[in-house]
Amino acid sequence: MAKPSLPQGTRDFAPDVVRRRQYILHTIKTVFELYGFQPLETPAMENLETLMGKYGEEGDKLIFKILNNGLDNPAKQEATRAAFEKALEGKNTKDLTERALRYDLTIPFARFVAMNHGQLTFPFKRYQVQPVWRADRPQRGRYREFYQCDADVVGSNSLLNEVELVQLYTEVFNRLKMDGFELRINSRKILAALAEICGGADKMVDITIAIDKLDKIGIEKVKEELGQRGLQETQISTIKQYLAIDGSNEAKLAAIETLLSESEQGKKGIAEIRFVLERTQLAGTNAPLIIDFTLARGLNYYTGIIFEVKAPATVKIGSIGGGGRYDDLTGLFGVPNMPGVGISFGVDRIYDVLEELALFPDTVAQGTKVLFFNLGESESKQAFALVQQLRGKGIATELFHEQAKMDKQFKYAEKKGIPYAIIIGSKELESGTCNVKDLRNGQQQSIGFADLLTQSFE
Amino acid sequence: MAKPSLPQGTRDFAPDVVRRRQYILHTIKTVFELYGFQPLETPAMENLETLMGKYGEEGDKLIFKILNNGLDNPAKQEATRAAFEKALEGKNTKDLTERALRYDLTIPFARFVAMNHGQLTFPFKRYQVQPVWRADRPQRGRYREFYQCDADVVGSNSLLNEVELVQLYTEVFNRLKMDGFELRINSRKILAALAEICGGADKMVDITIAIDKLDKIGIEKVKEELGQRGLQETQISTIKQYLAIDGSNEAKLAAIETLLSESEQGKKGIAEIRFVLERTQLAGTNAPLIIDFTLARGLNYYTGIIFEVKAPATVKIGSIGGGGRYDDLTGLFGVPNMPGVGISFGVDRIYDVLEELALFPDTVAQGTKVLFFNLGESESKQAFALVQQLRGKGIATELFHEQAKMDKQFKYAEKKGIPYAIIIGSKELESGTCNVKDLRNGQQQSIGFADLLTQSFE
Repeated sequence: MAKPSLPQGTRDFAPDVVRRRQYILHTIKTVFELYGFQPLETPAMENLETLMGKYGEEGDKLIFKILNNGLDNPAKQEATRAAFEKALEGKNTKDLTERALRYDLTIPFARFVAMNHGQLTFPFKRYQVQPVWRADRPQRGRYREFYQCDADVVGSNSLLNEVELVQLYTEVFNRLKMDGFELRINSRKILAALAEICGGADKMVDITIAIDKLDKIGIEKVKEELGQRGLQETQISTIKQYLAIDGSNEAKLAAIETLLSESEQGKKGIAEIRFVLERTQLAGTNAPLIIDFTLARGLNYYTGIIFEVKAPATVKIGSIGGGGRYDDLTGLFGVPNMPGVGISFGVDRIYDVLEELALFPDTVAQGTKVLFFNLGESESKQAFALVQQLRGKGIATELFHEQAKMDKQFKYAEKKGIPYAIIIGSKELESGTCNVKDLRNGQQQSIGFADLLTQSFE
Repeated sequence: MAKPSLPQGTRDFAPDVVRRRQYILHTIKTVFELYGFQPLETPAMENLETLMGKYGEEGDKLIFKILNNGLDNPAKQEATRAAFEKALEGKNTKDLTERALRYDLTIPFARFVAMNHGQLTFPFKRYQVQPVWRADRPQRGRYREFYQCDADVVGSNSLLNEVELVQLYTEVFNRLKMDGFELRINSRKILAALAEICGGADKMVDITIAIDKLDKIGIEKVKEELGQRGLQETQISTIKQYLAIDGSNEAKLAAIETLLSESEQGKKGIAEIRFVLERTQLAGTNAPLIIDFTLARGLNYYTGIIFEVKAPATVKIGSIGGGGRYDDLTGLFGVPNMPGVGISFGVDRIYDVLEELALFPDTVAQGTKVLFFNLGESESKQAFALVQQLRGKGIATELFHEQAKMDKQFKYAEKKGIPYAIIIGSKELESGTCNVKDLRNGQQQSIGFADLLTQSFE
């Protein structure tokens, strides 16, 4: 048999990686719970029609579809052949594939709310941490299976939710000790107002597409692109002015107030940002909130405040989280008027940042604390009873699985990163003591069996 | 748009269900860690050839295959058409489907060990808790997506592992307070010995198939079936004698020793069971171990001790866990001589048992502990600051998202099962106190803002 391998773009997570990932996810989930969010889980597969058409044409192509079983059913032969012909034209039909893998957590959440809105208590605050799958071309940092980690509040227009999400982000990154992260904030209403004073709402898409590229291509190229998209000199000049707004949050707000003074929408967006800033401060949260009018976050989804979290400047990795307010989550599924606001954590990137900045606590990857050596039948019988007693105290403990040379057993402890070895030989058995060795510094001491239970093995 | 729905055989887990499931999984994982098992996670998709042929012909059909993307690629048209023709004959080809969804956790684990055996420390003790997918016909208690929860030790022949797995099972079900569960134990060597004295090893499959049905069809039908499978009267009589063995574990061992006295294999199996029983007792574990010679557990996989966990007799649900020793886990992937032993927990069924016996602790489904009412702008500003302080103390707290009538806010607390409401109206704001109401018994008291932080909200 050929050497086994993994599908492109997928990963095994070995124990130490799982433990580090769990440290991140546990931190985030703990804070979600503190803020009153409740866990939700949806299945990996959804009906194809639930997903198709929700992520744009490009997205549709990247959805993993599941082949129907029973394609050899003679009764369905004709329909199956027709489905094959469609597939050759790049079209999916239910006769070939009825189900597909989740592409994100937002659409399954919307589907859940639409299906259960009669039973739910609104505002419904849910969090969800599950893998998603995308048939993207794999590359460094981009996988075909990866975790999303989302929190959303639906059924509330209150801006207090936005304030809470700012606090939540701050709390999580503080707990992860990620000094220097930034919370960028903007409002889609401000972007809409800019479009408005630059020739009408229909320019919104052109303007946001161009602005989204600012980081990559620079202001001159952005101006060029805006020209190609049919914007006039004076309009481009306004946009340039907009993008040049700088200084403290207060200075930025003053400048944008002047620039958008003619737009009701603009004023509303500014007032909302002010509210979030003030209320966050008032609640005593020291959030690194930075107004960033160049923040656009995609095209059609968000309608109010938008967020993005930037990693500390020393790490070149871009955004490690983001979100914003939307108007109508479940309209797609026949349940209109369900506004909401949500945020997301980029778990893979957060992992990379913590790794690069050496911020994982040493204890995170530690499993077994104590290894009892196995030096013979009588010795191991005694050890086995003590192992059970230490486990009863909540200390992760192992007995080496067979009688073996000391150095083989030391090697096992070392490779597994076990800090304590406990050795019971024939002498120790006689005297009712054991030899406890701290493998990190080589120190050892003799301890009576009974006293072992009051030891701390940190 | 049509009402959204879920694919057949899949489930959403609403918050209270997620929390109960997490209670079970957290209990099991905590014990796995205490016993030195390390977490592993593998991707949902595996290459098709990793999975095919590992679960028998029936299993192959139940594997969910993922459709390749880009079937409309003109350059591949010919190959794709050929793949379609094969699919009509019920054959899978890489030109149609290269990947498939994990069917269990054992084969991906074997694949992982085969791919990484140079880097791993043996014995490698891993646990894995992830969903698997099977295109089974959905029915009550049988889903197309469900969680498996496995622990395995590979690279060790030591029977101490079996003893530890008995202890581990016992510890988990004790922690779940599931009084009356039973740990059935047998050995495949004893079944092989029975086959041996009934006409040779080639009868093993026939005998185990028939024995496996004993519970369902009764002894008379089993005898009939054995006859149809070509066993002689005397052999059937021996099997009947075997199946009739009853009494205490000691009585059963005595009887089986007589019956299998001619078989070396049988003696070995008996000695192994004796070892597990004795060592478990010696270590002080009060495990409800019951020898059950009718336990067979499938056909070809296991080679030594086998286990099955039965729910308390009052719950009609059958097995809630099982496992055993196998000889050669990774041979399928080109790495021979890797013996191991593993067990599995049936999470869905354990859930049903705990539900039926009302064994979930009341606190499990509880999320938010405290709801601050929102009674106006000044009031909510004060409340918001206190909310943050309580969260800082680790107490899950919410502020109602908008100013609303009291009964609307009470209703929210009630529906979400929040035990405490804290009310700050204009009077309270003036006096620097708040009104703390225990919604479970209606009791309320007035507490100063500063004193709130030393309250326990249990």
